[in-house]
Amino acid sequence: MTVNEFNERLDNYGKIVNDALLKYIPSNDVRQKQVFEAMRYSVMAGGKRIRPVLVLEFCRVCGGDIENALPFACAIEFVHTYSLIHDDLPCMDNAELRRGKPSCHIKFGEATALLAGDALLSLAFETALCNNNIDKIGYYNVIRATGELAKASGAEGMVGGQVIDLDSVGKQIDLDTLEDMHKKKTGAMIIAAAKMGCMVAGADGQKINAAGEYAKRIGLAFQIVDDLLDTQGDTSTLGKPTGSDDVNNKNTYVSLLGIQKSKEMVEKLTDEAIDFLKVFDDNTFLAMLAEKLAKRDR
Amino acid sequence: MTVNEFNERLDNYGKIVNDALLKYIPSNDVRQKQVFEAMRYSVMAGGKRIRPVLVLEFCRVCGGDIENALPFACAIEFVHTYSLIHDDLPCMDNAELRRGKPSCHIKFGEATALLAGDALLSLAFETALCNNNIDKIGYYNVIRATGELAKASGAEGMVGGQVIDLDSVGKQIDLDTLEDMHKKKTGAMIIAAAKMGCMVAGADGQKINAAGEYAKRIGLAFQIVDDLLDTQGDTSTLGKPTGSDDVNNKNTYVSLLGIQKSKEMVEKLTDEAIDFLKVFDDNTFLAMLAEKLAKRDR
Repeated sequence: MTVNEFNERLDNYGKIVNDALLKYIPSNDVRQKQVFEAMRYSVMAGGKRIRPVLVLEFCRVCGGDIENALPFACAIEFVHTYSLIHDDLPCMDNAELRRGKPSCHIKFGEATALLAGDALLSLAFETALCNNNIDKIGYYNVIRATGELAKASGAEGMVGGQVIDLDSVGKQIDLDTLEDMHKKKTGAMIIAAAKMGCMVAGADGQKINAAGEYAKRIGLAFQIVDDLLDTQGDTSTLGKPTGSDDVNNKNTYVSLLGIQKSKEMVEKLTDEAIDFLKVFDDNTFLAMLAEKLAKRDR
Repeated sequence: MTVNEFNERLDNYGKIVNDALLKYIPSNDVRQKQVFEAMRYSVMAGGKRIRPVLVLEFCRVCGGDIENALPFACAIEFVHTYSLIHDDLPCMDNAELRRGKPSCHIKFGEATALLAGDALLSLAFETALCNNNIDKIGYYNVIRATGELAKASGAEGMVGGQVIDLDSVGKQIDLDTLEDMHKKKTGAMIIAAAKMGCMVAGADGQKINAAGEYAKRIGLAFQIVDDLLDTQGDTSTLGKPTGSDDVNNKNTYVSLLGIQKSKEMVEKLTDEAIDFLKVFDDNTFLAMLAEKLAKRDR
């Protein structure tokens, strides 16, 4: 696979995901239309769509139809978007900008933003559980993929990581805590995305586990690259930005390990991630994705 | 069924629900334990457990085992509790008390309360989708009951109603808007509870519809009784309290219809609700529940 072919597939996934995302948020003239506007605004505000891409590609490499994975790709992006809306609220990060645009609560007010986030989480499950999915991939695969999403998004997954993050502000934490935080805060959803893709395709436990191990490592590597980029004055791009002004007060891989060891860790994690792909035929795209994320400069 | 027998069953349902709710929120010593504490605090803060009671009793009258309905009863109570936590936040009702105790954000801080609400919504779906449920009631019934919960809790249901409510503050709204708001804000989840109970028992469409029609009417009647009690200086008890100080600024059934017509509407809705129960054998408890809610004085 050439770099051009890789980029073409990545762009194509982005396009079909964006089209599908919009389809799930109605724009009809109901009394509560402002919440749908806020949901659409935040969902369509951009982003790499890494989680949906993982759902689609893991489904494909497991022999599934990516059309069948699309609702689950959207569901996980709804969960991701809700988490960003709530993260930006004044009681959390109090961020006025998200990807260069006014954050949801700046644009629509705090109450509507709170509710738009809430509604996106429900929409994620509604999207995953729709009858159409059952017809296409069967009850068993719908339930295990949706159950994975529920577990990964909750207090033992993403929300749990946010709580650990909140609790660590202004404290010196150790490497175990930092790793636990990232594994939950961003790792859980990236792992869920990879596993859900396999589940949609009806893959076996060996493949699902390998997908999870790959995703765990690219998620952690992504975070360390974020920390490295922050040190250079850039900002995070996985959706949990770190203002460059608070770099010195933050617990990061760079502050705990130093620049050199952090870079080595990214390389090691990426190599390990790619190694876990050997149970999949036609795994070049996923290998190139791991490398692209590790070597990105923004 | 005597009043004593009715109360005994109601109390028994409350007890088994409370025991089960606790079971689903781990208290182990994880780094993010404060979010579990906040979840437990709000879930166990009391309340009538009307929605869980509807799940259990509709399952029973459809010939199902209430043990099988218990996870779904808990799931819907988790959704209800999350909505109360978010409703109380400063950007929403800014309520410092909930059922006479400090509200979640007063007790645990705003960020933890926000995240505890978020985590409860994910937990609801995790609880509904657990493998144990699949073994007991089958894939089909798990998916349709959980799908109902997703739809009812989102922007077309409960959250939609909250948005209409927010939008109506300080405005004079008409009866259609008021009804639309209540149908969504509290009605959607009460209807979902009744339907989910039937679905867990594997009931047919006729019974599921009848349960929904019954629930729609007791939900609306409940709201009108709330408005009537507010006029007498009491406060709401369905979990969406109206401070007596803002009674005069609020759009209520009483302000739009007057006291007499509001009372007649409660009677009419209750009679209609009971009439929809005729497709169920052994429906006395549900009929008595409708009457109890209509005649309550707090």
